[in-house]
Amino acid sequence: MARKNAFYAQSGGVTAVINASAAGVIEAARDNKATIGKLYAGRNGIIGALTEDLIDTSKESKSAIAALKHTPGGAFGSCRYKLKDLESSRREYERLIEVFKAHDIGYFFYNGGGDSADTCLKISQLSKTMGYPIQAIHVPKTVDNDLPITDVCPGFGSVAKYTAVSCREAALDVASMCATSTKVFVMEVMGRHAGWIAAAAGLAKDKPEDAPHVILFPEIAFDQKAFLKKVDDTVKKVGYCVIVVSEGARTADGTFLADAGTTDAFGHKQLGGVAPVLAQMVKNELGYKYHWAVSDYLQRAARHIASATDVDQAYAVGRAAVEFAVAGKNAVMPTIERKKTKKYGWTIGEAPLKKVANVEKKMPRKFISKDGFGITPAGRAYLEPLIGGESYPPYKNGLPQFAELKLTPVAKKLNDHFEV
Amino acid sequence: MARKNAFYAQSGGVTAVINASAAGVIEAARDNKATIGKLYAGRNGIIGALTEDLIDTSKESKSAIAALKHTPGGAFGSCRYKLKDLESSRREYERLIEVFKAHDIGYFFYNGGGDSADTCLKISQLSKTMGYPIQAIHVPKTVDNDLPITDVCPGFGSVAKYTAVSCREAALDVASMCATSTKVFVMEVMGRHAGWIAAAAGLAKDKPEDAPHVILFPEIAFDQKAFLKKVDDTVKKVGYCVIVVSEGARTADGTFLADAGTTDAFGHKQLGGVAPVLAQMVKNELGYKYHWAVSDYLQRAARHIASATDVDQAYAVGRAAVEFAVAGKNAVMPTIERKKTKKYGWTIGEAPLKKVANVEKKMPRKFISKDGFGITPAGRAYLEPLIGGESYPPYKNGLPQFAELKLTPVAKKLNDHFEV
Repeated sequence: MARKNAFYAQSGGVTAVINASAAGVIEAARDNKATIGKLYAGRNGIIGALTEDLIDTSKESKSAIAALKHTPGGAFGSCRYKLKDLESSRREYERLIEVFKAHDIGYFFYNGGGDSADTCLKISQLSKTMGYPIQAIHVPKTVDNDLPITDVCPGFGSVAKYTAVSCREAALDVASMCATSTKVFVMEVMGRHAGWIAAAAGLAKDKPEDAPHVILFPEIAFDQKAFLKKVDDTVKKVGYCVIVVSEGARTADGTFLADAGTTDAFGHKQLGGVAPVLAQMVKNELGYKYHWAVSDYLQRAARHIASATDVDQAYAVGRAAVEFAVAGKNAVMPTIERKKTKKYGWTIGEAPLKKVANVEKKMPRKFISKDGFGITPAGRAYLEPLIGGESYPPYKNGLPQFAELKLTPVAKKLNDHFEV
Repeated sequence: MARKNAFYAQSGGVTAVINASAAGVIEAARDNKATIGKLYAGRNGIIGALTEDLIDTSKESKSAIAALKHTPGGAFGSCRYKLKDLESSRREYERLIEVFKAHDIGYFFYNGGGDSADTCLKISQLSKTMGYPIQAIHVPKTVDNDLPITDVCPGFGSVAKYTAVSCREAALDVASMCATSTKVFVMEVMGRHAGWIAAAAGLAKDKPEDAPHVILFPEIAFDQKAFLKKVDDTVKKVGYCVIVVSEGARTADGTFLADAGTTDAFGHKQLGGVAPVLAQMVKNELGYKYHWAVSDYLQRAARHIASATDVDQAYAVGRAAVEFAVAGKNAVMPTIERKKTKKYGWTIGEAPLKKVANVEKKMPRKFISKDGFGITPAGRAYLEPLIGGESYPPYKNGLPQFAELKLTPVAKKLNDHFEV
């Protein structure tokens, strides 16, 4: 096999551990110098390839790359940019080939979710469709946990842990205050299409009276009457009620609760925030004092409380992607395969990109309790090992110390400017 | 000195470390059995004393009490209930004395903020005003950091650490995405009257271009034009802008920005949430894509990322309170005194309650930068040691394990029911 350079990029919403995958890719590439020459990272994902804005990862020290394992965010910049099909975007594919050719790139590693898997699949077909030989391997990443085949998506375990830990902690706060103050606490978590993250909060519950008392999933149509009854019953029985709501919670007709309608002083519709909508509903209908929280980016950036299992898996899929490339593979994605042992274990598997791209994994209904407000033992059995273990970053002066990269640009070889 | 029983209660909004103070009080009482008999905790603060709802802490195991050091919330329940002065509430004071007498209580430990210090002061005067001999010691606690004399209030260091860590992490997320997506991130933190918590986020900034780029303090009148200019300049220069806003941010006429006016679909005014108001303002005026987070209780319950310094100080003031009582003191509060050494150090001091009750410590203007959007080196020098050190709780199955108390009730000796 001729030695070729490689391209790596991060795509879509970032996670607490996507940089651990980057570290896996970079370290494995360094271990396979006979096959892989330089590893270039795209600045801001695929946009870096289109604009020939490449970062030379070989200029980064070994310790800086190792520090990526405990650094949240996307160290090389990510993007929300989806390549269309060849017919509608021939210009973009031609440009990619131009840039790849100029930098002798024969390996393409793309670190993202479902949309990115689709982009990666299209790149993997360039030898067939455009006559440019390249191997494209997808590195799975998404807090949404919605990629098929893989048992879990790296990034999910850490946001799941953050959510469960925060819910358990905040519930103790509410429990302390409920006699004379706040009785209902609403915590909003991410998950526009699926309730995986909200479900993870269910892990905080050890005993029946523990929080969370109500989880609202996008998968279950919101029923205001049943919801208010559950909240009221819980306050009367336990003294307080902790609600975890997925940002994608919606009514039977598909209307997001978050859009149910706050408007600001200027009459503009206010975007986002299902937690305040629910809190206000509880106040209006039941009269209970409330508090609400929206974690937003804090949850998916919370490297300080990352799952050690997740960090390990994120790193492993990065390494595996390079090993797949070195083994001559194309159009595949490393997966996490759960062992069928009683004690949780996992290995790296392999999925064809054709079966990954644009396929969304739903949360099984059997993970949600019959009343729709909690998780089942099956849900718990799936989720619990994913938040296992702590993996703390190093601290200095009370603050986590994250990787500082040089991000040395690769000299441009093409003179023309490409507009994305 | 005759051996007497003691009463301990938690008051006001709880913190990540108020239970560490409880552990300090309980362990020190156990070490001083010659002076202090049983230590009874009030269920839900002073309400537990009024209703004769007492918990016998002697029934708790040594390990359960030790576990309080890493358990957030208020283990015995807290309350928002302020005793009025003797003239207007003679009935309540008479009831307290009745309960204290029935249970042979001679020591009163009250763990709270400014309002609670006032209650504690009134109790300390019962021997003079009502002829009932009791020693009352206040144990300082508040995330608001607004008690006078003490260098810092236990509880503040941990919320400060949570805020600075979360801000640093989320900023990396925003930085990754800003090329094609979110450019402005708004993070709301607690602080209705003072900007201490918002100021702590400033610790996340190491270099001039680092987040937070804008901090909004209650102390500085909100100037929409200057704010929008700062945000716009930052996005143009750095690529993105992270804003940390105190819930108490207000305009020159004292109007809270949070009240500036969201109404829900039913026309009800929506309470709380300055972050969405600012985010919407940025979107409307500058057009930037935004995200926002409101940590609410998560921040003050976040024991998982508590400051080790804060945990130590919270425990120490609990112990000191008991030692003060054993030494015969009354109407005092242990304080944290900062040593005048280059390396941060602290000792326990003592403040008369008269000088603590109802006095609010403001954040010095010299801690806020000239433009009003950041902290100064003096602010940093004060804040930085307070977030020093990590103090992780133990984990099992991926989740922190918190104290589980028996909360054994003390048999009632009074037959009458008291309505609070």
